Amino acid sequence: MAHLLSGLIDIELLPSGARTLTQQLYDQLRQAVLAGALPPGHRLPSSRDLSRHLKVSRNVVSLVVEQLAMEGYLDVGQGRRPTVAPLARSSLQVGKAGARRAPAGLRMSRWAEGFGRTDWPFENEGRPRPFAPGVADAREFPHELWARCLRRAARHVHAASMSTLNRPTLQAALLRHLSEYRGVKANARQVIVTPSAQASIDLIARVLLDAGDLAWVESPGYGGARAALEAAGARVAGIGLDRSGLSIAGRSDRPRLIFVTPSHQYPTGQLMPVKRRQEILAFAASIGAAIVEDDYDSEFHYDGRPVAALQGLDDTGSVFYVGTFSKSTFADIRTGYAIVPDGFVDVIEKAQRHSGQIVAPPVQDALAEFIDDGHFAAHIRKMARVYRARRDRLVQRLAAAMGEGVQISPPAGGMQLLVHLDDQQDDNDISMRLAAAGVTARPLSRHFTGRITGRGLFLGFAAWNEQEIDAGAEIIGRVLRAAGT
Amino acid sequence: MAHLLSGLIDIELLPSGARTLTQQLYDQLRQAVLAGALPPGHRLPSSRDLSRHLKVSRNVVSLVVEQLAMEGYLDVGQGRRPTVAPLARSSLQVGKAGARRAPAGLRMSRWAEGFGRTDWPFENEGRPRPFAPGVADAREFPHELWARCLRRAARHVHAASMSTLNRPTLQAALLRHLSEYRGVKANARQVIVTPSAQASIDLIARVLLDAGDLAWVESPGYGGARAALEAAGARVAGIGLDRSGLSIAGRSDRPRLIFVTPSHQYPTGQLMPVKRRQEILAFAASIGAAIVEDDYDSEFHYDGRPVAALQGLDDTGSVFYVGTFSKSTFADIRTGYAIVPDGFVDVIEKAQRHSGQIVAPPVQDALAEFIDDGHFAAHIRKMARVYRARRDRLVQRLAAAMGEGVQISPPAGGMQLLVHLDDQQDDNDISMRLAAAGVTARPLSRHFTGRITGRGLFLGFAAWNEQEIDAGAEIIGRVLRAAGT
Repeated sequence: MAHLLSGLIDIELLPSGARTLTQQLYDQLRQAVLAGALPPGHRLPSSRDLSRHLKVSRNVVSLVVEQLAMEGYLDVGQGRRPTVAPLARSSLQVGKAGARRAPAGLRMSRWAEGFGRTDWPFENEGRPRPFAPGVADAREFPHELWARCLRRAARHVHAASMSTLNRPTLQAALLRHLSEYRGVKANARQVIVTPSAQASIDLIARVLLDAGDLAWVESPGYGGARAALEAAGARVAGIGLDRSGLSIAGRSDRPRLIFVTPSHQYPTGQLMPVKRRQEILAFAASIGAAIVEDDYDSEFHYDGRPVAALQGLDDTGSVFYVGTFSKSTFADIRTGYAIVPDGFVDVIEKAQRHSGQIVAPPVQDALAEFIDDGHFAAHIRKMARVYRARRDRLVQRLAAAMGEGVQISPPAGGMQLLVHLDDQQDDNDISMRLAAAGVTARPLSRHFTGRITGRGLFLGFAAWNEQEIDAGAEIIGRVLRAAGT
Repeated sequence: MAHLLSGLIDIELLPSGARTLTQQLYDQLRQAVLAGALPPGHRLPSSRDLSRHLKVSRNVVSLVVEQLAMEGYLDVGQGRRPTVAPLARSSLQVGKAGARRAPAGLRMSRWAEGFGRTDWPFENEGRPRPFAPGVADAREFPHELWARCLRRAARHVHAASMSTLNRPTLQAALLRHLSEYRGVKANARQVIVTPSAQASIDLIARVLLDAGDLAWVESPGYGGARAALEAAGARVAGIGLDRSGLSIAGRSDRPRLIFVTPSHQYPTGQLMPVKRRQEILAFAASIGAAIVEDDYDSEFHYDGRPVAALQGLDDTGSVFYVGTFSKSTFADIRTGYAIVPDGFVDVIEKAQRHSGQIVAPPVQDALAEFIDDGHFAAHIRKMARVYRARRDRLVQRLAAAMGEGVQISPPAGGMQLLVHLDDQQDDNDISMRLAAAGVTARPLSRHFTGRITGRGLFLGFAAWNEQEIDAGAEIIGRVLRAAGT
């Protein structure tokens, strides 16, 4: 039933369509005005004529005309026929997307432009494959138990809770866990729940740093931290490591923030001994600097018991402790956390409201139940056995594939290890060859801020089973031999 | 079984405790070293003596000593008894929190300090109560259906998906919904999922703005937008409204970003007619400015059909469209979204990784199913009826309680309405009196950026049932009469 409206446009109303006649008439008239088919000043037929002509009720016509008048497409007046309002003719193809032009003059911020220059997240790795670091094995996670927790949590969330960003259920459960496993000391309200460890670092950096402030990171170190600190405007200085980790002796610069990974240094796997921890705490307190301790995968410790967190040693309220569930459960949990000094709880919660770095309440409540019911501790115990065996297997297979000269630091815990290469070897080039052969091996050289003082391959062993480890190690051996190692 | 270790400290190991003997011995020795009870240089008994003395196996003692040596608490050597390492004596009360001092010299960023100066979020409102604006009625939400969707989603999430921040399932479902209900035009990949509309605005502002850039907001307008723009470093100018909304005529300044609420202006409820929309689009395109359209509650439209979004009129790729599920479902869903110009998809996704403004995948997948199964549209239809009746009831009861002089703009849609007061009336003072009487009524005057040109009370009617509306309106009438209105 196509009808020519005043000789200008076709109106076709389908009585059996998914959309009501009112919706169809509205869309078509609006489109005709926008496209200029009904030009400004054009007088429409009367409602009665339109109604008869289109075989729809007058009520439908009146509703549509009223709506279009309210939105400014038509001018209506007492007793007059509606006329098309004077609008700019648009080239818009209503109903089609994709033909859009690229953003006209829109410029990006320096922060956004900087993404292209940072090495985080690593580009072009695509889907995780052996030996992407930092990936937990989601295949081993008890998804059925988790789904049950999630369902129960979803049914108990209600309006009364909406002012709570960080759910008291999870704050209490997580704190019990962290105090037991990580030696963390805090009150439950100091526990902040965010979508990732990265979100926690971003939040903390934004709350602590102004443009131009100095921040220290470990070099080599975690690129995500550097990116977050730079996003907050910091000047980031890479501080080298000695055998005890971050080497602060003899430095005269005064950072506002110090980022460290004391449990398993990222990426070397080094443990920071208590003496260095105390030195850094004392140094930070003496100059009013904050310490951000990223304890990303330290629940998994294989030789000896997990080393207690730096946070538990602090009695000055200078330490912001950061961790994540995405290593201890699976990446898609998308939940991280921070323990912040008591005096910062209120401002961090406001920052969460301002930035939206908040985790959906049912996920928080489900995690609380998952912890309280013992599933979390059981999963960590199980995965610690699994990951330890994988670490040992990867070390052994690499030694077999690469020969005796291979230098590996098998870390006491965590989910990744570092294979050292000679300073003459181009770990970037080897990494690219390995990528082409199906193996992810991040070059150590790209983890430095400033001078590059080592070459190596950074390999994650956690998410891959025996067959995957064997095949990957085989490929690494082959590529390294071909590269003349 | 308390034992005095070398005459210096008590060691008490409980064989039936929740913690293993190894853990207990580790904790107590570590604490003794940290607290200085075992001073630096002090020589411990041999493993054999300790083992006999404490009645635990030598294996336990050796493990603990090895661990403490690895962490740097003890020095060990071949054939020698372990000695306490030279550490700084700590005043730490191990195991106790709460006695911490306030953060020593830690300074907050200007951003964080600014929270105290912004009027967003509104302070001291406490738990939502009538008539807090922007609150959906969670009591009416089909939580049981939602829990089922969430459970199914939780069981289907697995490792392969971990690279996806914005789940294709939700992108497709949401786009279908928005294109049908809101006239939005985009490809699915342009749909970005964040924990709140506020997170979307924050993300967009950080990607578009550098320090000192000019941004326009409506005045009166939404405080959350102003806060996010200021957080990104923008100079924010409040632009007054005329009958068509944001009044751009005659302005010679050139913003980089323009924030608007064209469907239901926040807080006046005004609809921006198509002509003004076109003018703003043309103006923005001519100067290379971005438009952020916040379409926060426009699914609920009562008089006529929902007005199509500004985004659908744009053919220049200048519009960033922002919306949220927390109005259309319930606040605790903690999920918002943005539709960004195609050329910005990659950089926005990187910004999400950098800032962690990401929604947990099972929540995204569950929402996709909730939409696809028709529950979402059904809930919106139902709530539109409910909210319309509540709007009408509140208008009627206010008129009854306040008398004929009351000036209310009953909005054509949305979840809140504005009661106009005389310019002489102190809406702040009235708001405080109402708060004391149990009613939330935000003063219009606090929504301005720059000059205050109106007084009124901004009331949310959506989350409150008939009894609550009647009681609240009654209180408003009483307080206004007492204030001499």
